[in-house]
Amino acid sequence: MANFCLMIQYDGTRYNGWQRQGNTSNTIQEKLETILERLYGEPVDLNGSGRTDAGVHAFCQIANYRIPRILSRYTCQEIQQYFNEYLPQDIRILGVEKAEERFHARLSAISKTYEYRIDCGSVANVFERRYLYRVEEALDLDRMQEAAGYLTGTHDFKSFCDNRQMKKSTVRTIHEITLELENGILRIRYHGDGFLYHMVRILTGTLLEVGAGDLMPSQIPAILEARDRSFAGFTAPPQGLFLMDIYYE
Amino acid sequence: MANFCLMIQYDGTRYNGWQRQGNTSNTIQEKLETILERLYGEPVDLNGSGRTDAGVHAFCQIANYRIPRILSRYTCQEIQQYFNEYLPQDIRILGVEKAEERFHARLSAISKTYEYRIDCGSVANVFERRYLYRVEEALDLDRMQEAAGYLTGTHDFKSFCDNRQMKKSTVRTIHEITLELENGILRIRYHGDGFLYHMVRILTGTLLEVGAGDLMPSQIPAILEARDRSFAGFTAPPQGLFLMDIYYE
Repeated sequence: MANFCLMIQYDGTRYNGWQRQGNTSNTIQEKLETILERLYGEPVDLNGSGRTDAGVHAFCQIANYRIPRILSRYTCQEIQQYFNEYLPQDIRILGVEKAEERFHARLSAISKTYEYRIDCGSVANVFERRYLYRVEEALDLDRMQEAAGYLTGTHDFKSFCDNRQMKKSTVRTIHEITLELENGILRIRYHGDGFLYHMVRILTGTLLEVGAGDLMPSQIPAILEARDRSFAGFTAPPQGLFLMDIYYE
Repeated sequence: MANFCLMIQYDGTRYNGWQRQGNTSNTIQEKLETILERLYGEPVDLNGSGRTDAGVHAFCQIANYRIPRILSRYTCQEIQQYFNEYLPQDIRILGVEKAEERFHARLSAISKTYEYRIDCGSVANVFERRYLYRVEEALDLDRMQEAAGYLTGTHDFKSFCDNRQMKKSTVRTIHEITLELENGILRIRYHGDGFLYHMVRILTGTLLEVGAGDLMPSQIPAILEARDRSFAGFTAPPQGLFLMDIYYE
């Protein structure tokens, strides 16, 4: 089998997330698979590195697909051009590469980076407003950084997961959380080995509650220990969230 | 009379330009004047530094209004807050200042800068696509820079004006045109003492035709001399154009 790896950028605003779904339509995966089927003349399954929720963006999502070598008659450049000709303007293929046969965009991933963008400038940003979550309250970044320290490392993040029926392990490792404020935009970057349903958005909501003074940084360990969603902060809205990078061996 | 100066940022996508009009509505000036009337309880005329066309953006537009001192009961900060509370998200007031009584946003202006943004990257930009004009052809920037040299200085720009009934002088001075390419985005900046109807967009269309090889830089003097719109290039679309700065003494 030939194995192709796609680097995909998208503005998630108009979509019901990455993942193809039974009844609802208009997902990123569907848009891409429709074009693959047209290109190869038969259905092709695309494996994304992970789902992104409705309204969440990707600076660089990774996906792969395998096809029998006999059907593989296009070069990487031809595949990219074909996609970019037929995709809507809010989805672009940044690159196509041949991958080793055993490469799998989700199973081979070892870590990921997400970025959450918050507009905390004195005047709301006009031109990037679709990709920012606007916060009017003054934020104490030192306290947020302190809280981020408690969240870094290997923990059971059950309190930071919106899926109550989650039966698999909710233990994850966050390698690093960085906060960077520039021109009124606060970027919180999360690098970790994996993230639960809504985890980045709940981490962000919790850090924002710390920044606004509604939670103390020192309350974070108790929130983790509770293993109960109601102890953590709110789920920050999707429009500020970007999947940035996926790392492979 | 008290005289207030507003610094205004807007995404022009949804609007029929800056200028209030008789029958069509939904202009930036109208939105602002409606709020001023609500604030002061009587109609207030706003003078913009100049019109921007439908779909054109402003990084910083300047406007002023005069009101009798007896009605002037709000501080600059209160005026800014009131505007930003009631304006739609695609218009923001960046600042409000008290101006000298004789200051007039249009008549006191001595020069302006516009920027036109072109997406000429190998893959079309996803997140800034609403504020870029996408060009697929390869552009020769050296030739564009050479053509820009011919356009700089004091000339009759009648060939670069879409108003055929223009009766006033079409002589203008362009102080500088700079081209800057970064991350696949070409920014052309025009600094001049004033610009005719569609002038920046026709200058840009002409420079793009030079860059694509359809015009030679050395043809520019003849285009200027013709004083005939049909000799110059196409009118580049509005979404890539930003009013950046207005300079006063």
